Amino acid sequence: MAFFKVWAPRAQKVQVKVKNSLSNLNAKDHGWWEAEITKARPGDDYAYVLDDRDKPLPDPRSPFQPYGVHGASRLVDHDAFPWTDSGFQAQPLSSAVIYECHVGTFTPKGSFEAMIPKLDYLCDLGITHVELMPVNEFPGSRGWGYDGVDLFAPHHHYGGPDGLKKLVNACHEKGLAVLLDVVYNHLGPDGNYLDQFGPYFTDRHHTPWGRAVNFDTPGSDVARRFFVDNALMWLRDYHFDGLRLDAIHAIVDTSATHILEELANEVEALEAYVGRQKVLIAESNLNDPRVIQPSGFGGYGNHTQWTDDVHHALHTILTGENQGYYIDFGSFADLAKALKNAYVYDGQYSQFRRRNLGKPPHHLNGHKFVTFLQNHDQVGNRAQGERLHHIAGIDRLKIGAALLFTSPFVPLIFQGEEWAASTPFLYFTDHQNPDLGKAVLEGRRREFADFGWAAESIPDPQNENTFQRSVLNWHECETEPHQSVLQWYKKLIQLRKQFPELTDGRRQDVQVDYDETKKWINVQRRNISTVCNLSDDPQEIALPVPEKPVVLLKSGNEISIHDRGVTLPPQSVAILWQ
Amino acid sequence: MAFFKVWAPRAQKVQVKVKNSLSNLNAKDHGWWEAEITKARPGDDYAYVLDDRDKPLPDPRSPFQPYGVHGASRLVDHDAFPWTDSGFQAQPLSSAVIYECHVGTFTPKGSFEAMIPKLDYLCDLGITHVELMPVNEFPGSRGWGYDGVDLFAPHHHYGGPDGLKKLVNACHEKGLAVLLDVVYNHLGPDGNYLDQFGPYFTDRHHTPWGRAVNFDTPGSDVARRFFVDNALMWLRDYHFDGLRLDAIHAIVDTSATHILEELANEVEALEAYVGRQKVLIAESNLNDPRVIQPSGFGGYGNHTQWTDDVHHALHTILTGENQGYYIDFGSFADLAKALKNAYVYDGQYSQFRRRNLGKPPHHLNGHKFVTFLQNHDQVGNRAQGERLHHIAGIDRLKIGAALLFTSPFVPLIFQGEEWAASTPFLYFTDHQNPDLGKAVLEGRRREFADFGWAAESIPDPQNENTFQRSVLNWHECETEPHQSVLQWYKKLIQLRKQFPELTDGRRQDVQVDYDETKKWINVQRRNISTVCNLSDDPQEIALPVPEKPVVLLKSGNEISIHDRGVTLPPQSVAILWQ
Repeated sequence: MAFFKVWAPRAQKVQVKVKNSLSNLNAKDHGWWEAEITKARPGDDYAYVLDDRDKPLPDPRSPFQPYGVHGASRLVDHDAFPWTDSGFQAQPLSSAVIYECHVGTFTPKGSFEAMIPKLDYLCDLGITHVELMPVNEFPGSRGWGYDGVDLFAPHHHYGGPDGLKKLVNACHEKGLAVLLDVVYNHLGPDGNYLDQFGPYFTDRHHTPWGRAVNFDTPGSDVARRFFVDNALMWLRDYHFDGLRLDAIHAIVDTSATHILEELANEVEALEAYVGRQKVLIAESNLNDPRVIQPSGFGGYGNHTQWTDDVHHALHTILTGENQGYYIDFGSFADLAKALKNAYVYDGQYSQFRRRNLGKPPHHLNGHKFVTFLQNHDQVGNRAQGERLHHIAGIDRLKIGAALLFTSPFVPLIFQGEEWAASTPFLYFTDHQNPDLGKAVLEGRRREFADFGWAAESIPDPQNENTFQRSVLNWHECETEPHQSVLQWYKKLIQLRKQFPELTDGRRQDVQVDYDETKKWINVQRRNISTVCNLSDDPQEIALPVPEKPVVLLKSGNEISIHDRGVTLPPQSVAILWQ
Repeated sequence: MAFFKVWAPRAQKVQVKVKNSLSNLNAKDHGWWEAEITKARPGDDYAYVLDDRDKPLPDPRSPFQPYGVHGASRLVDHDAFPWTDSGFQAQPLSSAVIYECHVGTFTPKGSFEAMIPKLDYLCDLGITHVELMPVNEFPGSRGWGYDGVDLFAPHHHYGGPDGLKKLVNACHEKGLAVLLDVVYNHLGPDGNYLDQFGPYFTDRHHTPWGRAVNFDTPGSDVARRFFVDNALMWLRDYHFDGLRLDAIHAIVDTSATHILEELANEVEALEAYVGRQKVLIAESNLNDPRVIQPSGFGGYGNHTQWTDDVHHALHTILTGENQGYYIDFGSFADLAKALKNAYVYDGQYSQFRRRNLGKPPHHLNGHKFVTFLQNHDQVGNRAQGERLHHIAGIDRLKIGAALLFTSPFVPLIFQGEEWAASTPFLYFTDHQNPDLGKAVLEGRRREFADFGWAAESIPDPQNENTFQRSVLNWHECETEPHQSVLQWYKKLIQLRKQFPELTDGRRQDVQVDYDETKKWINVQRRNISTVCNLSDDPQEIALPVPEKPVVLLKSGNEISIHDRGVTLPPQSVAILWQ
């Protein structure tokens, strides 16, 4: 027996087709339709038929799309999975090290289950949280996942609901927390049937990627519930420890209770119910403390936010790049401000945005910000998907990583970053609709023409080879120079765990000295100095504390410590303690 | 000598035409253009010419449009006016009684100066704050003002800058504060040249009335400043004591600092500079406490908000109407909730909005809400512009007014309400563009067809007679029944000033008893009971306090006080004290 319930306020008749047999649903209040079908069982395929139309539609809340975005849905019994993770407790965000990965390219097989043998490696590296890029059903078999459509269905090509549960359960058995990236600002262009069911979208606001979700016009109470229930499902039925909410700056909601505040309140209620802590991480480019202020105090109640400013400040210093949004960054002063305050833009004019941006987040702890040297966007949204060391070299990658792991923020790394993987992370798609495939390629060609890239040099996202080139090559991490980079990351993570001054999120604890012309910077976290020389010459850098420090870690060989401070070789970093 | 400065970021050349002589402006940073013209003097007409185009344009910040929205601007010296109001201090909002009026229909002459002889009347009535509907330049000579365009220019037909200053100065000399209604959510369709100068508008969001103002896309730093400077001008150069911000629910701003928060901060800085308190009153239908929470605590920092729920709860009980947005109201329970909490909708589903609405404002003082029994919208947006007594009769008007003036909120009345004026307040326009005039009539015919009004019964807003019918007839207020209604309002205002329990904004101080079937309600403010019998029969109403009260005011004759409480005649109210 199964219970079917769907919202279709404009329909005059709603039927469900289970194993080729049609049954009517009964109209209920507010546009809901319901029926109990005695013969339907978990594992059965089904689809909805609205007003006798020819094409049956997948369930908006389909738990599984075994045939892709256009096919039938399949019934899933979430209670049937044999979980063995009851003893697991996630590390708090304050001591977290997050590892972002993409299921399709993390392993050659590209499935949830194929990731399981790699978990020991992640534990050994010191990772506490695995963060999966979106896994819900998207068109075709290859994609980043941000143009997904069936929000409740883990991708069939990755292994569907059972595969995902196995992965989360295995992570928990190893002591690893698992976060999921979810996209609540728009849905992908292909396979999106929501609009045929009801007003899930609105024309009142616009997003750069597709129709804005209806969070504040008629019908929004149901549309809001759809997204809230989706979040609760991942946290409850799949045991995820938290969600990363994609690009919440593209969510416009003028309701008295913002959808993100509602979500935070609902997740808090769920925490009490399941007896486990859950975290909400919001990606936002608004530099608005409201995103991470508590619900009830004018905030949206997210626990922490993805913060691009730290990345941009680091990236521009390490690479010298100044195109696109990098035009707003590039000085050591920006980097110093980023490492102290997380936001560089806290009210002043942004040349890239052509408007004033941000607000000071002075009262907020460093753990309210997830920061990174690389992530899927910053690598993958480049024309050639280059990783940082491809542009800046390995010496500078090491400097950047040292600054990241000694910052007061929550560090995140992107799969393969820790060994300076030679593979790029390219933008890839597998649109079944050839027009969409063509549009994606042309869009990228146009975008990168502004940066001087010839059209033919842009990899075609639809080409399977573009995807294959992005798959990690795990063999290389045992060879040089990859192995020594891996050791560098491992040691940095160990230091972060060993010294409480590094994970201390109180930002008054951060002092930064720097010199724009001599290109050095020293970040002081109580007794620990992270001293960097980014010039091409050795140089002497005065340390604020006069006593002789101990070298905890250094990337160059010829470091010399003396009464005036320290002398570092070119392009090197040292972490000192006294 | 005069200094000209205008923002025109897309222009290649900008000139100013003063007394038929053209001068070039110099390009400055960020799209600004500037010039000092030696021969220009206050009183001179001027206009801008962009890129040698034929048609000179009015200044976006024009201080005066003596020839209407399409004509030249005129230089004004704000420092030249001989103010004599230095001793004035406005009453605080907590003890305010606000009188909303429309300059064009308040007197037969319809000008700022023609209002001055009526100020003694307002003082005698007990008014503390006069609130003017928008006065900035709008097309033609007749209009409500919400489709205005030249935000810095008092309407030439009302008497321009000098007339307005004379009115404000005269109000202050009488001890009356003056508030101005300003529209920052859109501009009118006719005479709006802002778009030719720069990106003052955005397509990212939509309003029901016209293009949304650009508060959060490129160029918004200047567009925001335009509105902030406008607010500061009225408060500084015209000595207004506060602003009523029209329909802020139609302002969408995703910036870290919301434009209203920025405005509140700027106004607070101005208060310190001019040494006088200024108030910001936001009209909002979002039922969102954020609007009135302090800046820095997640709020927009408005001092108080216009609150429709109290009106709707009162209006539906008094009239029995249940069409349109009145469908969400109509019970004594709603009225009781409104009189206690201001918001009836604080999170539940609204049938009219077809979504959940609002958030509880429990922590906010009653002075954070401006409430009314009638206002320009609630009267004028009816098909026939009927005032409350035209629908509900004078007995019920008196009951409504008693509930309004004994509430914990800030009361507002609409011109003529206090004597049950026989004149309607209709929707009138004077569009010079005949297509717009026609569109307005057709729009209203369509709107009211849903309520059963035949097209030909809708007064044509463009017809001068529609305007003339709305002009107050001051002679009638000395005749019955108008005079006795006027006395009723006067006594209610006196009671409010006499008894501190009535102006006490603490809402725990309000207790309400009611009976849906017997149609009585008693509002208890410590020792004062406002007891209403809305049935067609006399009835006994038990009072919560057993002692024998004193009658402060009553609308029916045969009131009897006894040990069980009070017996009231049909359709009457009594205010009792013990």
